[in-house]
Amino acid sequence: MIHEKLAGHHAIVTLPVLWGDMDAFGHVNNVRHIRWFESARVAFLEQANLRDMMLAVKLGPILASVACHYRKQIKYPDTIHVGSVVQKLGRTSMTLHHRIISQTHDDIAAEGESVVVIFDYQTQRPVRIPEEVRLAMEAMQASSD
Amino acid sequence: MIHEKLAGHHAIVTLPVLWGDMDAFGHVNNVRHIRWFESARVAFLEQANLRDMMLAVKLGPILASVACHYRKQIKYPDTIHVGSVVQKLGRTSMTLHHRIISQTHDDIAAEGESVVVIFDYQTQRPVRIPEEVRLAMEAMQASSD
Amino acid sequence: MIHEKLAGHHAIVTLPVLWGDMDAFGHVNNVRHIRWFESARVAFLEQANLRDMMLAVKLGPILASVACHYRKQIKYPDTIHVGSVVQKLGRTSMTLHHRIISQTHDDIAAEGESVVVIFDYQTQRPVRIPEEVRLAMEAMQASSD
Amino acid sequence: MIHEKLAGHHAIVTLPVLWGDMDAFGHVNNVRHIRWFESARVAFLEQANLRDMMLAVKLGPILASVACHYRKQIKYPDTIHVGSVVQKLGRTSMTLHHRIISQTHDDIAAEGESVVVIFDYQTQRPVRIPEEVRLAMEAMQASSD
Repeated sequence: MIHEKLAGHHAIVTLPVLWGDMDAFGHVNNVRHIRWFESARVAFLEQANLRDMMLAVKLGPILASVACHYRKQIKYPDTIHVGSVVQKLGRTSMTLHHRIISQTHDDIAAEGESVVVIFDYQTQRPVRIPEEVRLAMEAMQASSD
Repeated sequence: MIHEKLAGHHAIVTLPVLWGDMDAFGHVNNVRHIRWFESARVAFLEQANLRDMMLAVKLGPILASVACHYRKQIKYPDTIHVGSVVQKLGRTSMTLHHRIISQTHDDIAAEGESVVVIFDYQTQRPVRIPEEVRLAMEAMQASSD
Repeated sequence: MIHEKLAGHHAIVTLPVLWGDMDAFGHVNNVRHIRWFESARVAFLEQANLRDMMLAVKLGPILASVACHYRKQIKYPDTIHVGSVVQKLGRTSMTLHHRIISQTHDDIAAEGESVVVIFDYQTQRPVRIPEEVRLAMEAMQASSD
Repeated sequence: MIHEKLAGHHAIVTLPVLWGDMDAFGHVNNVRHIRWFESARVAFLEQANLRDMMLAVKLGPILASVACHYRKQIKYPDTIHVGSVVQKLGRTSMTLHHRIISQTHDDIAAEGESVVVIFDYQTQRPVRIPEEVRLAMEAMQASSD
């Protein structure tokens, strides 16, 4: 069962905290959370069939920005669960909200946002999110309401 | 000579891009920029004598949040320069703006912000930024005006 | 059930391969295997109660050397299982053999060795492995015969 | 001027130690040395024109194994210099020896070996090292005698 604070989030990724994720302060280094967000983002885009759809038309997702708000220190050993939800669906980009739950804290350890742009690698320009991707996103959003 | 787009930025850190910084897309992975911001932040806090001052009174900086806006793809080989400037000086926290210059692009490759909170590890609470730290920060800011 | 090729190995650690573990060659970067060995080593030392025992007497494990032999390329998505077995138990050091199984390959993807020295942080010298640690190690070894 | 203990080594790479390279023990994490070896290996292969030569004939270097012997703990701040020398030139593979000098210690902090195999990605088999690569390697070796 997913954590109640991940209700509405999709493509939950569960990862053990590694000893080597910690830095000289003895807690998980701030950079590691950004890797966890990346894993959540990749899982989300796959679940929305975005990867396959876009390969077909030579489009790809590019990360425009990422932000993370650190709530609680995470230490080894622990297990984290990270999920994503569409926060805003624009014409050429989408904003995903990510939330990291620490099993030890039984609470939110960090949360943040990624802005993903759909990019045409041939013209090197952002393009309109394909209709089928938009529908898949909306379906995912609907399923969690 | 520092890059003109780092004018006003302090504690410039210069780092070679490593081949291993790249991911399966063949450009520097988004997570790496957050490590570079960390290096810039540490250098900045040291230049402001924050580390020594705070050790004396058992206070320490904690990262509350970080954000990065990706402007240009970076590839190996390249060298980056990253600097920091105080964007906002609050009562218990400060916002640093970081800017990454790619030597190859001769331009901004990414920029973003860190919010650092001064934290008392004994009481586990944020505390007022010590006056001497505030003065050091303001002096750094003045020196770049 | 653990993979037959991990028979005799202890403290198995199971980890999902992350997209971000891959490098510009499109397979898991060689450095990542060394992190997985570290995770296996830490799990092994904990299972042998080494951490607690040694904390009590202010001794600690230090990594003297590590080696990895790469057998098969690993790609995202996959899951790896990594275990350890004592290969040699010396007076002040032990050699652990690590083996990484890729679930996708259903086979060994890499294997290697760590040499761990028991170190007295006060005298800054290697010391004899405590008798109780030696017994715990031998018991683990026996249990897998 | 390169450090005397790097005499005979080629393609020296100089890298600042980052605060974030340290782990919970407060020294540079063992995994980081393997990244530094990778950077040295890439620089060496490039200096030997191996990359270009091999691209032309669709061959590529694959890492068969790596080993690292840790001599001294490295801490932030420090700068390291890492070089490579051909230790053994086989029919389809070469063994490179890498040495890491810590500026702070003014001494060897770690050393180790990489075994690189020349691989034909079409047939998925190791192939004989091309004659021109062999000559370039021998010339590099000669230049340092």
